Amino acid sequence: MSRGPVSEVPLHGGDPSVLRRLNSVATLRALRGGGEPTLSELAKQVGLSRPTTEGVLGELVERGLVEEVPPRSGAGLGRPARRYRFRAEAGYALGMEIESHRARIFVADLDGEVVGGHSVELDVDWEPPERLAAVRAAVKTCLARAGIERSALWAVAAGTPGVIAPDGTVAICTVVPGWQGLHLARELGRSFSCPVYVENDANLATVAERWRGVAKDVDDVIYVLAQLHTGMGAIINGRLHRGRWGAAGEVGMLPELGLRDTTAALSGAMSPLDAGAGEGGGESSGGGSGGGRDAGAERVLDAAMRGDPEAVALVERLAARMARGIAAMALALDPEMIVVGGELTHTGDRLVEELRRHVRPLCLGPTRIEASTLGDEAVGLGAVRLALDQIDERLFSIETAS
Amino acid sequence: MSRGPVSEVPLHGGDPSVLRRLNSVATLRALRGGGEPTLSELAKQVGLSRPTTEGVLGELVERGLVEEVPPRSGAGLGRPARRYRFRAEAGYALGMEIESHRARIFVADLDGEVVGGHSVELDVDWEPPERLAAVRAAVKTCLARAGIERSALWAVAAGTPGVIAPDGTVAICTVVPGWQGLHLARELGRSFSCPVYVENDANLATVAERWRGVAKDVDDVIYVLAQLHTGMGAIINGRLHRGRWGAAGEVGMLPELGLRDTTAALSGAMSPLDAGAGEGGGESSGGGSGGGRDAGAERVLDAAMRGDPEAVALVERLAARMARGIAAMALALDPEMIVVGGELTHTGDRLVEELRRHVRPLCLGPTRIEASTLGDEAVGLGAVRLALDQIDERLFSIETAS
Repeated sequence: MSRGPVSEVPLHGGDPSVLRRLNSVATLRALRGGGEPTLSELAKQVGLSRPTTEGVLGELVERGLVEEVPPRSGAGLGRPARRYRFRAEAGYALGMEIESHRARIFVADLDGEVVGGHSVELDVDWEPPERLAAVRAAVKTCLARAGIERSALWAVAAGTPGVIAPDGTVAICTVVPGWQGLHLARELGRSFSCPVYVENDANLATVAERWRGVAKDVDDVIYVLAQLHTGMGAIINGRLHRGRWGAAGEVGMLPELGLRDTTAALSGAMSPLDAGAGEGGGESSGGGSGGGRDAGAERVLDAAMRGDPEAVALVERLAARMARGIAAMALALDPEMIVVGGELTHTGDRLVEELRRHVRPLCLGPTRIEASTLGDEAVGLGAVRLALDQIDERLFSIETAS
Repeated sequence: MSRGPVSEVPLHGGDPSVLRRLNSVATLRALRGGGEPTLSELAKQVGLSRPTTEGVLGELVERGLVEEVPPRSGAGLGRPARRYRFRAEAGYALGMEIESHRARIFVADLDGEVVGGHSVELDVDWEPPERLAAVRAAVKTCLARAGIERSALWAVAAGTPGVIAPDGTVAICTVVPGWQGLHLARELGRSFSCPVYVENDANLATVAERWRGVAKDVDDVIYVLAQLHTGMGAIINGRLHRGRWGAAGEVGMLPELGLRDTTAALSGAMSPLDAGAGEGGGESSGGGSGGGRDAGAERVLDAAMRGDPEAVALVERLAARMARGIAAMALALDPEMIVVGGELTHTGDRLVEELRRHVRPLCLGPTRIEASTLGDEAVGLGAVRLALDQIDERLFSIETAS
């Protein structure tokens, strides 16, 4: 359906380049939604004339964002109508998680379809140069296996523990050696020609759970990354809440809220009964620096996963302790849902059930407490989503010239 | 400057009534900004033709929102141009604070200019019917003194302690007798023909501080209403954060965070030295119900304001205790600024200084901690702002027919 010119609208001052951009963005949005519309269908959907739509499509095809697909042989007479589709393979987003003991990489097309992934173990004691070298090697392997050129990456994002400043510097971090003070976005940026973003790991897990996890389409969510260091993230009104200095969600800094020294809580309390590999499993293995993995705590988690009653009881006691910190966050924000993920949830549903039992009575509303459905992939997938959001912002911005 | 019709814009589908509304809203917005533009100036500013602008103005004048002002005698020849202004006196917003021991009413015009106010003392032990009757009488007095007809009120808002459900019911409240479970918006609504909104008192104080207080134009703010019950509110990304069930900011529910039983902390600890009016001032005067004013606590506050060293020390100790709760909220949200107001700050800058000393070291960013500049008026002014926001939403909505 073609429309004549509409009457005056005082929104853009009639700047023709802005209008062209508006038309282009609206057409791209319509195609991005999926399907393979014909020119007429597209023109109707967007509310433009056929000639305008044709011009816009020509430009989008030239930019590699759209392609003509083979016409479908219709039942009618005459030439079947040309159809168009968004080229999700025009570019890729790479998301990664960098922890003390592992790195996990995902690469996805512009539709968010994950087309490749790779994980590597990292040494907890590695300093940044070794850690970054291992991450670079993992990225290379990931891209090679997925058959994707590095130049096809349009944005890269990384999630890592700690408070991340807006410029991608690790402002505060106690769990990855040498990480604090590192300009991680710049360090990673040396390997890519596209923009690189860095974000707190729990924040990215929150984003992932809302994107394709248990919090899908929930606008007010808290995510608890329950592992040997426990972090939290929040989405408020559908937007990730980073805070003024990237430090939102750090209520665990208050010692009385039971979120600190999770490792010590597990490793110190377990009797040497289940010690297995020896090593004592004493009070302070690993030390107060919270430096990544702790052999004693690992053993408790492993034992709890095998159903060892003593270990299970320890995990449950830990949940009771953590409840204060999670409740503080929930009382501050009053979210619709709290999602619990991270390694501590590998012990099965026990931790989440215990948290429900202890956190619910402290909340003022009927907040739902759910186990993550994304498991260990949450942070990496959240990084992919962050990279895609940055790409979308450029693609759909009306201000930016293409 | 008149413009010809612009080319197609796929934003509204060309619906003429939507276009008319867009033009009307844009013109009203331009006039609302202040000044007394001529027809030509207005047409140029909004980007409409003179005839269209003239038509829109005619409609706005008819609705009582705009009026023609006497022309200024210009230097030029010929008839001076007609000028127009927004009629801020076309309607009024009424905001009130209803506490256990007082009610405070403000009335403001559509520009937010406060044109009347009135306060009354309330009996802490009153049940809702007596409390509401006193509030109604205070509203009547306020309107009469300001010379404003009740029918000229376009929106009313009230702030009160407790968790307020979205429909204006007091869901949880321990400090005002009989308040919990009351559908306060409906009860107040009996006195007004315009919409009535109810909001948590600390939330409204937050709104007021950002509107015209120390947090003006700060987008991420926490407000601490430090009084015998301490509440907190938050603005996130420039918007009041109510939470899913209106319960955001209630970290004080966790007893270990030092925000509960503020009254008891003051009244129980003071030696009878300064008791003055007798009454003992014992351990549990007022009881755990937190029921509003407490004579013992009052005495401490009064004494601290007079500079009594023992009382001052008590207030400072209280600040150290409250710091945990405020820090929990700050760590959850990572705001740019924390504003401290409420009766406890009447003791001068001491409480705020002590809070700075105790809260700052617990924050991860350089969060500013400032004393409220609105004093006792914060909640009532926030109620005015909430009512004005509701009015603006109706005035500037593109969907709503006038």
